[in-house]
Amino acid sequence: MKLSEGVEWAAHACAVMAALPPERVIPAAALAAFHDLPAPYMSKHLQALARAGLVVSTRGAGGGYRLARGARDISLWDVAQAIEGPGRSFRCQEIRRKGPCPTPAADCTKPCAIAAVFWDAEEAYRDALQRISIADVTRRIALGMDDARRAQLAAWIETAQGGQRV
Amino acid sequence: MKLSEGVEWAAHACAVMAALPPERVIPAAALAAFHDLPAPYMSKHLQALARAGLVVSTRGAGGGYRLARGARDISLWDVAQAIEGPGRSFRCQEIRRKGPCPTPAADCTKPCAIAAVFWDAEEAYRDALQRISIADVTRRIALGMDDARRAQLAAWIETAQGGQRV
Repeated sequence: MKLSEGVEWAAHACAVMAALPPERVIPAAALAAFHDLPAPYMSKHLQALARAGLVVSTRGAGGGYRLARGARDISLWDVAQAIEGPGRSFRCQEIRRKGPCPTPAADCTKPCAIAAVFWDAEEAYRDALQRISIADVTRRIALGMDDARRAQLAAWIETAQGGQRV
Repeated sequence: MKLSEGVEWAAHACAVMAALPPERVIPAAALAAFHDLPAPYMSKHLQALARAGLVVSTRGAGGGYRLARGARDISLWDVAQAIEGPGRSFRCQEIRRKGPCPTPAADCTKPCAIAAVFWDAEEAYRDALQRISIADVTRRIALGMDDARRAQLAAWIETAQGGQRV
């Protein structure tokens, strides 16, 4: 069971967008360049974030993306779901109802015992990702930075952002 | 992020094997037939369980599979890992080290803050599946059964098992 690399890219892109001044946007190409990633794929992932309502964008010269709400209101679960799509990881095909000794329909009102365990595990996974926001992530990343690095990042953000405001 | 259907099949097959008398085996074809599943795919999943050391098999007429150890000593995590393969779900590509503002190597001795959160979530998922054994699953399935159904299953197991002992 593997997560798409897009989850990593999108989470890092959100962390960069969290550093933008209010109302400012950053072009998709700059978000790709920041981590030396291919721009077309980054654009695809940013569009997925937009479809999920996590970012907003403006088109044209000076346009780009920003977070649609505060970084503390976007969890890593939100990002993972936006890229991976909704739905459970374990898809119960109800095979207990098939074959020579099918479980009677009356005994299938509750989920299969096997599916129930996997779904509980998925809830534990989801809960862990929902507890951590993009703001938490940027705070943790910033903890390890010295002033020179902070200044380097601020200068890059200043240069990279688009002229439009939204 | 989707689990292979083989995880469901393999978990159910383990629950059936848990009902075998000691030392007795059940052919792969019977394990497939029990849930009306295609035998070649079920065989593939059983071979994955064997490679992971969860089941043992004997070949030839009357041969088949049985659990390699007690059903209480095989967790749903063991089964999922056997089918899905090892390794983390979130594969950190260390993109923080790339681009125009790479994180300095000295600041990369700890995992990336984003990867760390996903890995914590994976641990929560793993822990939940490790807590539940095949024996737990069969106990939960049996809870809903009446005597007629118990007898039906016992009769099927009696007919389906191979003659060999291991």
